Amino acid sequence: MLGVDPGTRATGYGLVEGGRPGRLAHRLVECGVVRPRADDLPGRLVEIHTAALEIIDRLEPACVAIESPFHGRNARTALVLGHARGVLVLAAELRGLTVYEYAPREVKKRVVGTGAASKEQVGFMVKHHLRLGEPPRPADAADGCAVALCHLLGGPLR
Amino acid sequence: MLGVDPGTRATGYGLVEGGRPGRLAHRLVECGVVRPRADDLPGRLVEIHTAALEIIDRLEPACVAIESPFHGRNARTALVLGHARGVLVLAAELRGLTVYEYAPREVKKRVVGTGAASKEQVGFMVKHHLRLGEPPRPADAADGCAVALCHLLGGPLR
Repeated sequence: MLGVDPGTRATGYGLVEGGRPGRLAHRLVECGVVRPRADDLPGRLVEIHTAALEIIDRLEPACVAIESPFHGRNARTALVLGHARGVLVLAAELRGLTVYEYAPREVKKRVVGTGAASKEQVGFMVKHHLRLGEPPRPADAADGCAVALCHLLGGPLR
Repeated sequence: MLGVDPGTRATGYGLVEGGRPGRLAHRLVECGVVRPRADDLPGRLVEIHTAALEIIDRLEPACVAIESPFHGRNARTALVLGHARGVLVLAAELRGLTVYEYAPREVKKRVVGTGAASKEQVGFMVKHHLRLGEPPRPADAADGCAVALCHLLGGPLR
């Protein structure tokens, strides 16, 4: 399960293998952050899309979970974020992967237990669920793992 | 100049060749509407992106102008529209084309003379500028032509 926290400046991702219930813990395969270097949005979109295809082809996830804020942002911010999500969803669909969407509150509620969790709490609980020595760094990478865990811990709420 | 009016349900486009000032009129090469048939957003994004690449490769525009609403829409609408714009801008950038952005009011102001122009007025003035017998149909195709004309009639305001 590839979890993705999209953004035009930083897109966090985490590939987490689901454990069997009551037997094995979920296991972190890889996590990281895609930080486009281009100054312009078109250039950043190409970098995000290319990186997503590379990560999918290399890690071969079974499906993709992507964070999807529908509320609490202004239209301008949402429009720009939509561009990043669009090229990420495109990459998943081009590789035939099902895309699941989760709102930020849903991710926090599933992974931490409260929809109002802080960045630090998310990192701490990602560390706990994946039995890591430290929370993944930077925080964007932990957020990608949290989206993957959100799916593995319960599937879509709707 | 390829003009594009993006949307996840209907994306209008128009390829307009710029005339020389005082000599030749701008000339319509082709216009149309991309209407994705998929029910889901990921499927529609693939259809929009694939169609954009096909149109660019076939018509070989020098650059792309795309309508870009920054105001007057709610965050949810803007996020979804951003997905469509994202895969369109990606297609242009992958083909090395410069992307120009114009707000809807800017397009209407340049093409019709007032930022509050109706769909009918836009169609009428597109017909006028391109010396057509009728406005392009459907209206989405005329909107694509209007975006191209906006660029040819004056270039970016900023």
